Amino acid sequence: MSLPNLQVALDHSNVADAIAATVAVGNEVDIIEAGTVLMLEVGSEVVRVIRELFPDKIVVADTKCADAGGTVAKNCANRGANWMTCICSATVATMKAAAKEIDEIQVELYGNWTYEEAQTWLDAGMTQAIYHQSRDALLAGETWGEKDLQKVRKLIEMGFKVSVTGGLTIETLALFKGIDVYTFIAGRGITEAPDPAAAARAFKQRIADIWG
Amino acid sequence: MSLPNLQVALDHSNVADAIAATVAVGNEVDIIEAGTVLMLEVGSEVVRVIRELFPDKIVVADTKCADAGGTVAKNCANRGANWMTCICSATVATMKAAAKEIDEIQVELYGNWTYEEAQTWLDAGMTQAIYHQSRDALLAGETWGEKDLQKVRKLIEMGFKVSVTGGLTIETLALFKGIDVYTFIAGRGITEAPDPAAAARAFKQRIADIWG
Repeated sequence: MSLPNLQVALDHSNVADAIAATVAVGNEVDIIEAGTVLMLEVGSEVVRVIRELFPDKIVVADTKCADAGGTVAKNCANRGANWMTCICSATVATMKAAAKEIDEIQVELYGNWTYEEAQTWLDAGMTQAIYHQSRDALLAGETWGEKDLQKVRKLIEMGFKVSVTGGLTIETLALFKGIDVYTFIAGRGITEAPDPAAAARAFKQRIADIWG
Repeated sequence: MSLPNLQVALDHSNVADAIAATVAVGNEVDIIEAGTVLMLEVGSEVVRVIRELFPDKIVVADTKCADAGGTVAKNCANRGANWMTCICSATVATMKAAAKEIDEIQVELYGNWTYEEAQTWLDAGMTQAIYHQSRDALLAGETWGEKDLQKVRKLIEMGFKVSVTGGLTIETLALFKGIDVYTFIAGRGITEAPDPAAAARAFKQRIADIWG
């Protein structure tokens, strides 16, 4: 079992805050994500800024692309993104069109997806999946539980590299002990901490403690 | 049966082309949509430009929002959007959070949604649904057929105001004759026409011929 990556999600609504957070934590994380809210609000130029600041990090454009996969992927790749996300309810044709234009596609699992659909994504060459608790569901009182862990395990068994996200804290990481998670994604848990770089290091240390 | 609206979708990847198209056809259509590709590429400021140019038109931000509904809706409303889209695989909590911040939410139907899910959107106060042929599915050879028309009819019976989109032409409008479609959405069919304003007028005329 290899050490899970740590990804920071930038979910700000303006460039200044997003870039301040990037500069603060970029060296401490493995992957930097331009969040959906951020991209919809300020556009993909922010991806280029992140790429210029951290040329050696993996940069993800969290487009949650549902259609026109080729165009969206080309736009993101042009700005220096390595990966981008497609929503699970996109057609396989959209995912394949996107996959042609960028290194890797992450399928974002929202709503009532099925393992049969997931197999079609693998068969079409998708390599990654992102398992969520949605922010709104968390606000409505949902929490991580065994039902989530079972799904994460099953997706990994199927062959996906699985990222996990949604309200993660240093404390909740231990829930995933023994599971070959590819990446943990944290947003405000890092970027809104009093010392974001220290928060990112604490996540990394906890990951090393559990999976090292 | 009232006359369906005509909505133009701006799916350009840069502000200049999008605004040129807006100026060319804005007076001819009922609703102007900042497309997902456009918003991801240039950000929501383009919505404000459209709003300033056409203060009396309905403006839609096609965010296909999957999460953080409240934040995305607030950002779009701040720029002057009347409506925004949520992807059908978003949680109901996301849709409700969005609906609090903007006039109306349109649920975008992609993938394997069910009528049971659709009823939960209605019950949560969503008023509109968008029925698609995805651009990538069209490129892969899919076309409009009776299976689509049945779903559109059923959604209208359930109580949704239903928009229809995906590869529509003046010729395909007749397929929907007798169906109380709320809005037809056309993108390149208008914006890439030799004379976009004339193309929009031809769509409006054909709608009037069929539904008038």
